[in-house]
Amino acid sequence: MRNIKLTIEYDGRRYLGWQRLGDSDKTIQGKIESTLKQMTGETIEIIGSGRTDAGTHARGQVANFKTTSDLTREQMLSFLNRYLPNDMVITKVEEMPERFHARYNVKGKQYSYYVWNSEVPTALERHTSFHVKQALDLEKMQLACQKLTGQHDFIGFSSLKKTKKSTVRTIEAINVNQYGNLLEFQFVGDGFLYNMVRIMMGTIIEIGLGKLPVEVIDEIFAKKVRQQAGETVPAHALFLDEVYY
Amino acid sequence: MRNIKLTIEYDGRRYLGWQRLGDSDKTIQGKIESTLKQMTGETIEIIGSGRTDAGTHARGQVANFKTTSDLTREQMLSFLNRYLPNDMVITKVEEMPERFHARYNVKGKQYSYYVWNSEVPTALERHTSFHVKQALDLEKMQLACQKLTGQHDFIGFSSLKKTKKSTVRTIEAINVNQYGNLLEFQFVGDGFLYNMVRIMMGTIIEIGLGKLPVEVIDEIFAKKVRQQAGETVPAHALFLDEVYY
Repeated sequence: MRNIKLTIEYDGRRYLGWQRLGDSDKTIQGKIESTLKQMTGETIEIIGSGRTDAGTHARGQVANFKTTSDLTREQMLSFLNRYLPNDMVITKVEEMPERFHARYNVKGKQYSYYVWNSEVPTALERHTSFHVKQALDLEKMQLACQKLTGQHDFIGFSSLKKTKKSTVRTIEAINVNQYGNLLEFQFVGDGFLYNMVRIMMGTIIEIGLGKLPVEVIDEIFAKKVRQQAGETVPAHALFLDEVYY
Repeated sequence: MRNIKLTIEYDGRRYLGWQRLGDSDKTIQGKIESTLKQMTGETIEIIGSGRTDAGTHARGQVANFKTTSDLTREQMLSFLNRYLPNDMVITKVEEMPERFHARYNVKGKQYSYYVWNSEVPTALERHTSFHVKQALDLEKMQLACQKLTGQHDFIGFSSLKKTKKSTVRTIEAINVNQYGNLLEFQFVGDGFLYNMVRIMMGTIIEIGLGKLPVEVIDEIFAKKVRQQAGETVPAHALFLDEVYY
């Protein structure tokens, strides 16, 4: 059996998220698996690096699958990009050692979140940014990002119920970039809990609006409850940029 | 009568272009005019800085109109952005002297054109870039841009039939920026003929592909015929960035 790694770019707008639901072609996983079946004749299950939510985009999602197909990597790339819908693109096909597993072997990920900060909305970025009308205090937000960086128990920044698995993660960096009214927050870490980026981002925004003090972050880390954190901001402004192995 | 200047951002995908066609709401002008009628009760004709083609986007199109309405600029901005579809945003409302005319007073414009240069297509930029699969020679393209810069008769780079009006224009600069696989060409000039950016861009691309020699530009300027220039590249990768007064 060959072990094939796919790197995948997608516009998540039309989809219910990564994870297959029944036979639906409305998920990224489902759509790729049905196209792989067309290509190989085999029923193939792909393993993603992790799920993305309904509406979330990816610049570099990663998945792997096993196959006996003897197509070349170039043939696979061209077949897939021909038959997948045009809001989904395979950017790379790689041959991997048998033991490579797209989820277990993840060393880290980068996500980006986009905030459109202006009284006036945006037409061109409306599908890929979250509109915040009120002025944001960038310095306070930077401070919040510093506090979030490092190794912490992020349970209070997730939608998880109690779990036996460790919820300690390390955020290496949160980079903030400004392009006119568009703010880009890049989160680099060794792993992210369910909804973690969107809840951290919601908290950072409420700090920027002055609705929450920066110190709330220390409290959430200490008390380990979601309650005090900000809202879960919308999925359509979130991008999975890259998965590190 | 008050003279109001609007700055307009739009995602051109759903529209037949700027210019009103009958009563259709499928044009940018038509849609803004019908919303202005809702706002003021008056039948208003807006004067755009110039047309944009079907599918072309704008970051900063400009138009003006006369009205007797006594709404404040803030009220106009908020009414328009509430009732316009969300692929159209008024970013600024300004009060102008009576003689201001959005077309006659134009001093210059900036357009951007986006080329996705990779064997593999793009999912996320598919609505705003033109996909060129074959490798482009960036140095040759830069050279082509240099040759196009300056004051020339651009009739050979337009879809115009013979005309008595001057077709001499000055291109101040063509800036080329690269963001990964995405190439951005910014054209700054005192005026652009019909289809001029798209034909220049088509020519620059064919030069980058080695299909046309760089010298073709001198020939087109000398012979003043469209024939030798490149194809008119698609409208969906073109943005009107700014209008200068």
